[in-house]
Amino acid sequence: MFKKPLILITNDDGITAPGIRTLIKVMNTIGDVVVVAPDSPQSGMGHAITVDATLHCKKEQIDDGPQTEYSTSGTPADCIKLAVHEILDRTPDLCVSGINHGSNSSINVIYSGTMSAAIEAGIEGIPAIGFSLLDYDWEANFESTEDFIKTITQNVLKNGLPKGIVLNVNFPKLEKQDIKGIKICRQAKANWVEEFDKRKNPHGKDYYWLTGKFVNLDNGEDTDEWALEHGYVSVVPVQFDLTAHHFIQQLNLWSLDD
Amino acid sequence: MFKKPLILITNDDGITAPGIRTLIKVMNTIGDVVVVAPDSPQSGMGHAITVDATLHCKKEQIDDGPQTEYSTSGTPADCIKLAVHEILDRTPDLCVSGINHGSNSSINVIYSGTMSAAIEAGIEGIPAIGFSLLDYDWEANFESTEDFIKTITQNVLKNGLPKGIVLNVNFPKLEKQDIKGIKICRQAKANWVEEFDKRKNPHGKDYYWLTGKFVNLDNGEDTDEWALEHGYVSVVPVQFDLTAHHFIQQLNLWSLDD
Repeated sequence: MFKKPLILITNDDGITAPGIRTLIKVMNTIGDVVVVAPDSPQSGMGHAITVDATLHCKKEQIDDGPQTEYSTSGTPADCIKLAVHEILDRTPDLCVSGINHGSNSSINVIYSGTMSAAIEAGIEGIPAIGFSLLDYDWEANFESTEDFIKTITQNVLKNGLPKGIVLNVNFPKLEKQDIKGIKICRQAKANWVEEFDKRKNPHGKDYYWLTGKFVNLDNGEDTDEWALEHGYVSVVPVQFDLTAHHFIQQLNLWSLDD
Repeated sequence: MFKKPLILITNDDGITAPGIRTLIKVMNTIGDVVVVAPDSPQSGMGHAITVDATLHCKKEQIDDGPQTEYSTSGTPADCIKLAVHEILDRTPDLCVSGINHGSNSSINVIYSGTMSAAIEAGIEGIPAIGFSLLDYDWEANFESTEDFIKTITQNVLKNGLPKGIVLNVNFPKLEKQDIKGIKICRQAKANWVEEFDKRKNPHGKDYYWLTGKFVNLDNGEDTDEWALEHGYVSVVPVQFDLTAHHFIQQLNLWSLDD
């Protein structure tokens, strides 16, 4: 008998976000779904884990779908740890995170709670994908992403992913008929140029809001930024061995034994 | 005239932690030091940034040293952004983060606030080093690290670091005379096996503490774990282009155009 894959879903916008609700709907057509997601938004949490505080976890019923759902007080990475080591009886066949409201392309992968959850699943040896839509709006239109998500997910279930690699998938903010297809990419060398909005509180004390401008100086046509700007869905294979292997030989020439 | 380098210091244990006080003392012998560090411990914060809350920043005088100091309400990555874009008049010549109370070797680099600060500085184009001691104790003995920190720092100031690479330095918990030297390493393929300590609060509601056991199944003698276990200081070059370049060709063979 064909056994349905067990799919773990999380995100960083919180369990009620329209992005994760779309992802749950799509995954229900592919496998048995368990959702373990933050009870409130966790954007910008990077790969934070909760080491100095307690974690809470609550069973939820948010809609009439067949999935099982839990909300937690933790970060996206906490959700994966809780799911794998406390909630689930067996290791899931796949973990999907998102759909994030906003881009996780290029350097954003570093700050991304969505991708940290996928990476945490990858560390646990689970094939994992993070999905993000280039639209920060809570009411963003996720419909155009659904068929692409199915295609990518079915490819991962069929082909697997090598140990140590997860996928970072970003969708342009376009109607489905205007999306040109899927492109395998590398992470663009782009970054944020920060600007702090300095204000005074009612008591005369300074405080800041972090704002910034995204700057892409990478002209490569093989980058995620290029793909997204040109109407493609970008897929970047992401690794969590951060070693710059190519620089080890050079470092060995330094005078470190003096 | 010889111009002293401008050195930015931060950490994730908070501005009063003995680890950062040691690092400040060492850096005062090398350059002009500005400290911008969290006002409270931020361990396990990964690469979190503060996007949905305000940031505060306060000038501090903690000891009689020549350095300038600021504490902030932000994460380690926030501290770098604030320092570079709001506090400092010019880009620092070097950023050092730590000395962390506890290991940031192997997969710990992913969860590390100390290393996220170094990586954030690297993204800003600043040569950067994260230092960590394999001793979680607040009263850990940092003295044995001082000469090694000087040597590594002076090498970075002299040789520079390529764009996109920062250094992750870990120290074994040993007296200075027992440390065998410095080894350039790759990140070991190790991970945490989580265990959740499930408890009931006084009102009968379940909650969890995250605990775990560190497991290293990587037998390589070129890893940071091997070096540290054998009495060496480990130096891993770390990159923040997370692309798994070697897997792109394979991914292009998948059936993603159906």
